[in-house]
Amino acid sequence: MVIIMSPHATDEEIESVIDRVKSDGYQSHRSAGQSRTIIGVIGTSIELDPRNYELMDAVTEVVRVSEPFKLASRTFKPESTVVEVSGVSFGGKTIPVIAGPCAVESREQITKIAELVAEAGAKGLRGGAYKPRTSPYSFQGLGEQGLQLLREAADKFDLIAVTEVLEPGRIGLVSQYADILQLGARNMHNFTFLRELGEQRKPVLLKRGISATIEEWLQAAEYILAGGNSNIILCERGIRTFETYTRNTMDISAIPVVQKLSHLPIIADPSHGTGRRHKVLPMARASIAAGADGLMVEVHTDPENARSDGAQSLLPEQFQVLMEKTRQIAVVLDRSI
Amino acid sequence: MVIIMSPHATDEEIESVIDRVKSDGYQSHRSAGQSRTIIGVIGTSIELDPRNYELMDAVTEVVRVSEPFKLASRTFKPESTVVEVSGVSFGGKTIPVIAGPCAVESREQITKIAELVAEAGAKGLRGGAYKPRTSPYSFQGLGEQGLQLLREAADKFDLIAVTEVLEPGRIGLVSQYADILQLGARNMHNFTFLRELGEQRKPVLLKRGISATIEEWLQAAEYILAGGNSNIILCERGIRTFETYTRNTMDISAIPVVQKLSHLPIIADPSHGTGRRHKVLPMARASIAAGADGLMVEVHTDPENARSDGAQSLLPEQFQVLMEKTRQIAVVLDRSI
Amino acid sequence: MVIIMSPHATDEEIESVIDRVKSDGYQSHRSAGQSRTIIGVIGTSIELDPRNYELMDAVTEVVRVSEPFKLASRTFKPESTVVEVSGVSFGGKTIPVIAGPCAVESREQITKIAELVAEAGAKGLRGGAYKPRTSPYSFQGLGEQGLQLLREAADKFDLIAVTEVLEPGRIGLVSQYADILQLGARNMHNFTFLRELGEQRKPVLLKRGISATIEEWLQAAEYILAGGNSNIILCERGIRTFETYTRNTMDISAIPVVQKLSHLPIIADPSHGTGRRHKVLPMARASIAAGADGLMVEVHTDPENARSDGAQSLLPEQFQVLMEKTRQIAVVLDRSI
Amino acid sequence: MVIIMSPHATDEEIESVIDRVKSDGYQSHRSAGQSRTIIGVIGTSIELDPRNYELMDAVTEVVRVSEPFKLASRTFKPESTVVEVSGVSFGGKTIPVIAGPCAVESREQITKIAELVAEAGAKGLRGGAYKPRTSPYSFQGLGEQGLQLLREAADKFDLIAVTEVLEPGRIGLVSQYADILQLGARNMHNFTFLRELGEQRKPVLLKRGISATIEEWLQAAEYILAGGNSNIILCERGIRTFETYTRNTMDISAIPVVQKLSHLPIIADPSHGTGRRHKVLPMARASIAAGADGLMVEVHTDPENARSDGAQSLLPEQFQVLMEKTRQIAVVLDRSI
Repeated sequence: MVIIMSPHATDEEIESVIDRVKSDGYQSHRSAGQSRTIIGVIGTSIELDPRNYELMDAVTEVVRVSEPFKLASRTFKPESTVVEVSGVSFGGKTIPVIAGPCAVESREQITKIAELVAEAGAKGLRGGAYKPRTSPYSFQGLGEQGLQLLREAADKFDLIAVTEVLEPGRIGLVSQYADILQLGARNMHNFTFLRELGEQRKPVLLKRGISATIEEWLQAAEYILAGGNSNIILCERGIRTFETYTRNTMDISAIPVVQKLSHLPIIADPSHGTGRRHKVLPMARASIAAGADGLMVEVHTDPENARSDGAQSLLPEQFQVLMEKTRQIAVVLDRSI
Repeated sequence: MVIIMSPHATDEEIESVIDRVKSDGYQSHRSAGQSRTIIGVIGTSIELDPRNYELMDAVTEVVRVSEPFKLASRTFKPESTVVEVSGVSFGGKTIPVIAGPCAVESREQITKIAELVAEAGAKGLRGGAYKPRTSPYSFQGLGEQGLQLLREAADKFDLIAVTEVLEPGRIGLVSQYADILQLGARNMHNFTFLRELGEQRKPVLLKRGISATIEEWLQAAEYILAGGNSNIILCERGIRTFETYTRNTMDISAIPVVQKLSHLPIIADPSHGTGRRHKVLPMARASIAAGADGLMVEVHTDPENARSDGAQSLLPEQFQVLMEKTRQIAVVLDRSI
Repeated sequence: MVIIMSPHATDEEIESVIDRVKSDGYQSHRSAGQSRTIIGVIGTSIELDPRNYELMDAVTEVVRVSEPFKLASRTFKPESTVVEVSGVSFGGKTIPVIAGPCAVESREQITKIAELVAEAGAKGLRGGAYKPRTSPYSFQGLGEQGLQLLREAADKFDLIAVTEVLEPGRIGLVSQYADILQLGARNMHNFTFLRELGEQRKPVLLKRGISATIEEWLQAAEYILAGGNSNIILCERGIRTFETYTRNTMDISAIPVVQKLSHLPIIADPSHGTGRRHKVLPMARASIAAGADGLMVEVHTDPENARSDGAQSLLPEQFQVLMEKTRQIAVVLDRSI
Repeated sequence: MVIIMSPHATDEEIESVIDRVKSDGYQSHRSAGQSRTIIGVIGTSIELDPRNYELMDAVTEVVRVSEPFKLASRTFKPESTVVEVSGVSFGGKTIPVIAGPCAVESREQITKIAELVAEAGAKGLRGGAYKPRTSPYSFQGLGEQGLQLLREAADKFDLIAVTEVLEPGRIGLVSQYADILQLGARNMHNFTFLRELGEQRKPVLLKRGISATIEEWLQAAEYILAGGNSNIILCERGIRTFETYTRNTMDISAIPVVQKLSHLPIIADPSHGTGRRHKVLPMARASIAAGADGLMVEVHTDPENARSDGAQSLLPEQFQVLMEKTRQIAVVLDRSI
């Protein structure tokens, strides 16, 4: 942390800042320039609230030097993390695609979709059993039965199974069926939940909160890492902006930004990022071109009758095109799908 | 719901939309204008996803007519709801102020602050026992001991006690000590949690999510109302915008907007809304002037050494000025504090 | 400017930064802490782009110390500026209200409205003669004739006249009729325009751009001040956020923030800030309560037939209530309207 | 326009809305459903402000049916527009790249860069002669001399010349030197300027305003089209969001959205979209993968000493990699660079 004093700061004011640094348990380093004094604070922890210093007399500005996360940063771990899930790697040269319906609706539905996406080259099957819905009157998912059907369909076509956990109390149950636990955007700031995901070992797909800064997102990853679980896959899915033509604005630039700041793999979800079927293909291409380590895409054989989010689900033939095009783009980046 | 067809829509395309309406279980009303046909869909429920119709051939636009919430709306219940909590009313002519530290830190701390805020005219005592923190390394609250100390201090000075519940599993425990359960901004989209708060009867202070639209906020209230609990107090606490001089941008206009759309009382939290002590007083005055039904303010006797959010806590003498000024403004609106 | 080096920075890397500082024409001050070196750069001008240093090897972060504006800052001029316009003061104890129609439509219209707002206590008359319209097909104003009618009506009721200039080429013409030149939100980033407003002496009402940060707004003021014109009145009129229930989100907290950063007076425009008539009164009350130095409000005797923005114009009787209520609130802040 | 009446609307209230429609000069079509009446208004023009109806008694909602632009829409002109500029086409199968420095600094600088970008395959040369700068104290460009140098360098290497016009009064002058007139993001809402660009015939590169919705952007194009100039190239360059790690958030999804709504070509500017050199390559790849009709990229031979925006300028060798990679991605979309 660096504390920049006002040009008018008196000696007592400077001393009083230095005293506070000491009483907070840190060492300081005073440096007197021509016009103002700068106080460097050495070895501060993430815990320190810089605002406390800002409010002191004659302090002009306080600058946090280190990133507010540690284990998640590339400074701490320079080499990229590859998360291995039953033979599927996230963060390596090969780019896995996870596909499937928004919600598991029936054995027939999930089995048919699993077959189609596996044939097209997907490595993972997604499907919600517990659905977070904005309205209390909407379809909320099949629950444990949905989990069973998802597992069964994934096994039949040799796919890994990815599904959302809605509350900490169900981590154990969902873990019995899924290979990757998805933490939804609405729970990204749920610290109790993050902590519990850190205390178990299933890989976590950590979606970016709809209004989370990249910094907050990596702090959420830090919670899981701090518990000892380093199997984290980040997932960009769009942020809230003033634009209303799209449901959310996919922040494609978050992909290179995160890859510079952190060693964790990052995938993209163009279905939630756009909310409309016809924008999924261009945004999937763009995500891979920007360097994404994977894709998660909604696919449905009968989207018009899907029980949720049909409007953003691809038809099977559209998904095949997506696989083909993104595969070709991956080659340009010396990767493969 | 109103479906607006393209001027070029064929009869088959129009029929196909009408068929879908029927198969979705609703009645339609076809109205042919000079240039285009409009299809009214009667009695649609909140569940229907308008995007499914948008994707049909020759559909130009689909318009949801009714608000996506029902029990929370003034259309459903025209008269304002007054929430009574142990003799303190929210939503009536009298405007209650809730004050106290960000976190309960010790018996001495909470008792001293309770005494001061009660003397200044506050009706409620706030204080966190479980703190949601962006960093896993920050102070997380005293837990149940904090709840006990809060209750004890509130009782001593005849205040109602308000504290945050961080997870559904602790509703029971926190209810033993608190008069109002606060649901934090980060949990506003946590539907499981909302449902459980609907199934019990303690009043809920429902903070607006940092990037929640007013519509989503009222949908969150709908979850609680749908469970049978109508003791809900909404709380505006700032939204995330591009501006960085303030921690959040307090959306003061949300106060009159919510009061028009809903019958529920709405209070304001200028401490979280601004994040800095010296902006709390002007924003508290503005909130009352805009018509807020209450205030929640952070106060600390030693903010420089507070274990969290000291930078936004008022000193006791500043809180007295706040009470005095807002009291005078309330009179202008024919209300009292 | 402070340059924070990486803990791994080599001596050559540090030297190379110091060399660059020198070649940029500034002095540096090196300060070696235990874990890293910090380089203070003395006397940097606003011109220096900190990003150039950020891109150098082993540089962790670059921090601009001074505000990116000078003449507009309270550091430069601690006492508040009072802008005097033909006997009406902005920034003093008395709070002037400017009112009138969105656009001047006819002699009868502007004269009638001028009479009504003068009677209610307004000190200024607003009315557009050149209207910026999102659509090329909308009413664009009466032009010079509008200016004449505005002047005539203002003189008749002893009001100052405020109107928007849409392009630098018309500053001269508009100045012949108006007492205050309004620079609209869409032109706040128009640097050529700002420069020309700085080179003349009519007071300028500088509206905040719809997506301008407070910093950018004060930089726009800096352009005018740099030209030698210090008669600037800032005007908050709402910023663009994700919320759609209101046209813009009025950033009421900008009022205390600006008053801390700058010596310039700041007024509020609740008509454009909200876009709907029934929200104007609560937001006008809130603005005054937050400390605004003035108000600008749209009033129309027949808003349903107004040629622009009728939906946000107050009826005369609503304006009277506004004057009465804000007058009472001003008293609470030891001011008067 | 469709006006949805409240279920409680009386016959008089319905009649009064219909009367107003008539007095506004439109025909209405009344349609009585089971629970409420819907009034279709036929043939409304863009000029009508729906808010006037919203404020009438017993009106629940007013829905604008048609897009607020006409000439710019694909409904009006279904086939894509190809803008031809001295043999370079925008909007066809071939994707032109425009490259060059932020500002023209000297003959040597612009000639050297022109040579390098031409060799790498660029078709256009960019370079600012008049720079809009946030601070009045920054370098403002070489003026007409800059235009001359740009033209000379472009001619030497057979490139088209693209440069920004900062004010309507200089359209004539800049047109003598440039092949495409760039309208900067800050001027996108400057309606006077747009109108004047519509009245001449030079192609216009219309940058999206930093907080402009896609709708507003197309309305800006409408102004130019309405004047008779259909040589418009849209340019996405990032929007303002809450995220601060990037200067702006490039809205890559705007590319497919605009291509669906409008027939005009759209290119991308990843230099301004990101503000940092190392993010330009991934975002350029993503833009082409999403379907952009062109790229505009900043290149500098000595970015560390560039007089503006050096931090976002590519080095020549980085630009070569960009050309190579985007060329390969274009092939995947059956296009070529």
